[in-house]
Amino acid sequence: MTDIQASGASKTVRVELGARSYDILIGPGILARAGEEIARRAPGIRAAIVTDETVAPLYLARMQDVLRQAGIASSAIVMPAGEATKSLSCLGEVVDSVLADRLERGDTVIALGGGVIGDLAGFAAGIVRRGMRFIQIPTTLLAQVDSSVGGKTGINSPRGKNLIGVFYQPQLVLADTEVLSTLSPREFRAGYAEVVKYGLIDQPEFFEWLEQHHAAVFAGGPERVEAVARCCAAKAAVVAGDEQEHGNRALLNLGHTFGHALEAAANYDSARLVHGEGVAIGMALAHRFSAQLGLISGQDATRAVRHLQTVGLPTEISQIPGPRFTVDLLMDKIAQDKKVSKGKLTFILTRGLGQSFVARDISAEKVSEFLAGQLDAPA
Amino acid sequence: MTDIQASGASKTVRVELGARSYDILIGPGILARAGEEIARRAPGIRAAIVTDETVAPLYLARMQDVLRQAGIASSAIVMPAGEATKSLSCLGEVVDSVLADRLERGDTVIALGGGVIGDLAGFAAGIVRRGMRFIQIPTTLLAQVDSSVGGKTGINSPRGKNLIGVFYQPQLVLADTEVLSTLSPREFRAGYAEVVKYGLIDQPEFFEWLEQHHAAVFAGGPERVEAVARCCAAKAAVVAGDEQEHGNRALLNLGHTFGHALEAAANYDSARLVHGEGVAIGMALAHRFSAQLGLISGQDATRAVRHLQTVGLPTEISQIPGPRFTVDLLMDKIAQDKKVSKGKLTFILTRGLGQSFVARDISAEKVSEFLAGQLDAPA
Repeated sequence: MTDIQASGASKTVRVELGARSYDILIGPGILARAGEEIARRAPGIRAAIVTDETVAPLYLARMQDVLRQAGIASSAIVMPAGEATKSLSCLGEVVDSVLADRLERGDTVIALGGGVIGDLAGFAAGIVRRGMRFIQIPTTLLAQVDSSVGGKTGINSPRGKNLIGVFYQPQLVLADTEVLSTLSPREFRAGYAEVVKYGLIDQPEFFEWLEQHHAAVFAGGPERVEAVARCCAAKAAVVAGDEQEHGNRALLNLGHTFGHALEAAANYDSARLVHGEGVAIGMALAHRFSAQLGLISGQDATRAVRHLQTVGLPTEISQIPGPRFTVDLLMDKIAQDKKVSKGKLTFILTRGLGQSFVARDISAEKVSEFLAGQLDAPA
Repeated sequence: MTDIQASGASKTVRVELGARSYDILIGPGILARAGEEIARRAPGIRAAIVTDETVAPLYLARMQDVLRQAGIASSAIVMPAGEATKSLSCLGEVVDSVLADRLERGDTVIALGGGVIGDLAGFAAGIVRRGMRFIQIPTTLLAQVDSSVGGKTGINSPRGKNLIGVFYQPQLVLADTEVLSTLSPREFRAGYAEVVKYGLIDQPEFFEWLEQHHAAVFAGGPERVEAVARCCAAKAAVVAGDEQEHGNRALLNLGHTFGHALEAAANYDSARLVHGEGVAIGMALAHRFSAQLGLISGQDATRAVRHLQTVGLPTEISQIPGPRFTVDLLMDKIAQDKKVSKGKLTFILTRGLGQSFVARDISAEKVSEFLAGQLDAPA
């Protein structure tokens, strides 16, 4: 298990990856310390900030100020907000902007934003001059607990999400838990689905803690810092053991095979479904499917689903607004997902609350039967 | 030093990179064995061949035949020949073609061609699904002795060559020395400049061997296999010691700082100058500059230059056809090169024949004075 170091209201999680190890600093007001934290680790560098049109008006000027105060000159490129920014043409724009500034390999790209910006900026940092320094400043709960840690970067292809990218680790992650208070309730909730995921993977005691403390996590304060730190520590431990997703890292995909299929079936229309909501429904489906296969008791499956419902997350396919899905459509989307290996379907299933495992040999027929039952269920 | 294993007319060089180690098979007729060599290492995979309009008519059908006979189904994408293919839009085409075939991470991209195809296909293999299997089948001397070994992949930016890419190792390199007989004399000579480079870096005995055997290397036969194998072994040893170019790998850039500046000043117009010719002139300049700095005797510098001249390679800036260059233009191109670190100029200089070293602190003024003298020299 990865340690969590506490210092005042903040916590530090170390991702152990040998020469590529790095710290995640988590707490209120971390943004104001960004300049000194970066300058302390890499004096004399310059920075290119990649951000989006939602985040820029809120934090970009402050960010450039604190960098300047620490002696770090920075430029900024502001991309459109939203998933469409994870494209080859936007990647080209970011790369060109960094090269136009004549930044060198020791200089840094900073991602200031949510998962889209982190994935895009990290990919750019990984390929400019075959790899520059990279720093993540995630501004959404989803990015703080999931996408900013672990080094997965990338963009989407017209043929599927995240099909193009590199494994590329940041040198530092700065997670300011105060900035999460500017998120919409829907966006915070969507990120919270990934928080619950860590409990359901292999930490039943964390799941129980969330059942008791979820209101405080949503309200802010020390419980929020604690929750983010525990998620980062959990992800750090998995990543340290399996950096390039050949084995146990796949557990992090709990809820994601069903979730990605639902997002694809909804045409990635965020008015209908955002990623965290897809994961929430996906985790509910994974637990119900595990119950149907006799792996977990109906009681435990219901308990997992109920906590997601308590915080207002969707748990039924029928809760997705718009045209109904068919079994064929969902099965086609599942087959397109990159977690298909040599034609067999891989799912993360569970043997109990917080006892998930990788099941590599699931027959398409069983999945199809299960989904038919779910689609027939009343809303 | 990396071992060379001999087997019949062929030789094998192993690139030692821990879990990412791989073999380079060198010899006549290797192409005909490609299917069995690939299938033996990775049974059951599928392949996407990336090639260009020059190579496709010569070898593509044969390549797909030998793969089919070994049970490997393949698709092919044929790109335009030439440096302009190392672009973001061509990269997008290759990536999309591989994804369209629904290849998985364990399947392979095969680069069948020269350095341009190897760099482009390797980059694509490195980013599709965050890294697929990759096999190099280099068809030029330059690619066999240099670009196919070591894992540097990438494309050009309007702001400079090779500024975008990843370090990504192939799983196998198949260098058929017979296919080199279809190269034009100019192209073979250009590749030979990189062969001479290995001698001049740190193998004076190999340089002497080349002085004696260059005609046989050009004619084909065992000397050609021997030369390619010695170059691959030399490069493999450097790469194994410094995979990501933080230290001694920079020695491989002997002749390249001047060479790249000349290529850029000639607008990458291959009618005026191809890469190997730029490297030949660059190595001549590096030796003369070293002599001017009092590092090497004039006699040794002249001997290095004379061998390049013997095989018909250019060694003077004035031999480049077209408009004359100015010192300012060349200095500007040198400053743009990515081997500039924190504003200091880095050159590979030499203390004797085959005694090159990395000089990181060369003042722009000295370089500028030296180039002024070279530009004044008669053609």
